[in-house]
Amino acid sequence: MGLAGYGARVEGLHAVLAAAAAGRVETLFIEEGRRRRHEVRELIAMVGAERVRVVDDVRSLAETAAPQGVVAECRPIVPVALDSLAGPEAALMILDHVEDPQNLGAVARSSLAAGLSGLVISGRRAAPLSAAAFKAAAGALERLPVAVVGSIPEALRRLRRLGVWVVGLEPAAEEGLFGLELFTEPVAVVVGAEGSGLSRLTAERCDVLVAVPMAEGTESLNASVTAALAAFEIMRVRSGPPG
Amino acid sequence: MGLAGYGARVEGLHAVLAAAAAGRVETLFIEEGRRRRHEVRELIAMVGAERVRVVDDVRSLAETAAPQGVVAECRPIVPVALDSLAGPEAALMILDHVEDPQNLGAVARSSLAAGLSGLVISGRRAAPLSAAAFKAAAGALERLPVAVVGSIPEALRRLRRLGVWVVGLEPAAEEGLFGLELFTEPVAVVVGAEGSGLSRLTAERCDVLVAVPMAEGTESLNASVTAALAAFEIMRVRSGPPG
Repeated sequence: MGLAGYGARVEGLHAVLAAAAAGRVETLFIEEGRRRRHEVRELIAMVGAERVRVVDDVRSLAETAAPQGVVAECRPIVPVALDSLAGPEAALMILDHVEDPQNLGAVARSSLAAGLSGLVISGRRAAPLSAAAFKAAAGALERLPVAVVGSIPEALRRLRRLGVWVVGLEPAAEEGLFGLELFTEPVAVVVGAEGSGLSRLTAERCDVLVAVPMAEGTESLNASVTAALAAFEIMRVRSGPPG
Repeated sequence: MGLAGYGARVEGLHAVLAAAAAGRVETLFIEEGRRRRHEVRELIAMVGAERVRVVDDVRSLAETAAPQGVVAECRPIVPVALDSLAGPEAALMILDHVEDPQNLGAVARSSLAAGLSGLVISGRRAAPLSAAAFKAAAGALERLPVAVVGSIPEALRRLRRLGVWVVGLEPAAEEGLFGLELFTEPVAVVVGAEGSGLSRLTAERCDVLVAVPMAEGTESLNASVTAALAAFEIMRVRSGPPG
């Protein structure tokens, strides 16, 4: 996945509009019945009519269940190098074995909205950057830099060496997520798979483990909700005390 | 929906285990191939063998795409009266036209984890409390009190009369969500449909409109992420300044 790039296939109106805005669309398949809709005409104008193929039904071409009449073949996005994500302003989201592409896309969307500077995923076991991920990301994967690494624990070691603090989200941790002062430093938060949390080796490589405080008798959150809470907490802490 | 109750059909292992723990399962359909799994045997013991029907494939009985070999017919849950959700400790989540059952279930899960005291949905246009909602809620809909109302604006009027402050989440609002002091009072937060936000009448009935602060150039979040951020912000503000 790493060298080949990702995002060669994008489906759904919002996601394809974002790919077109990024200048990536090479061939655009549109359903005959949709071509007169306002947003689709706008899309055709952006892409250029010579790249458009009108078909009866795009669903046979689509990977996702609801492509909304538009499927695009795109110039792939090249992942960034991990080292390029370090730096004094670094605010990174790292996914440790999140396997659901929709969760991956949702995490990218929240991370970009919270102003994070990049996303790190594993090229081996993590959710693929598929058409479903691009659809759930609602355009965010066009803009958020993504590094694809061979090993998350190894990436954490490297980031720490480059001066980035690593904060792991772990339901059993004693320290709470909210108000973590470390978030004013160059930082990466690591979110694990739903249910099982972080892998042992990943947890060991974190500078600190924190939990989302939860009401008594409840024990888990969706991975994309955990990631969103962490991403916006970085924004909140960096913006200073609320007015 | 209101009088008839909801949750008569629950699918998926985690959701059915939660319904069984609540004592609601009347008939449990289990796939032959799954009955020896540890969690399924535990489930059979909870429900009682006389209520179990072993079948070749539960998918023909299921509403959701991945029932994980278990489908339960349950005694429905009766919605609570709206007035019962008011009170000095009230912390309510109100969904204005969220139509995706998975989003509804995810919102219930986050709301319960954040310690909110109830959920209010519309019986007309909101996402139905379907098997898909129960699956995404991961047990939360068994425990979180839900009121089903005919009109969200009318419900807001009633809650305000009962002393509950109403905070609407509106992307265009000037005031920010984080640190809102009103969250220490009896409060309800209203989250709208993805994209379109709150309906005009709903927005007019709110005491205050707030936005999730977002990075420049980004404009929207998934409705269930917005709801989770609001729910946990109530918890954060009520727990006092972070230690």
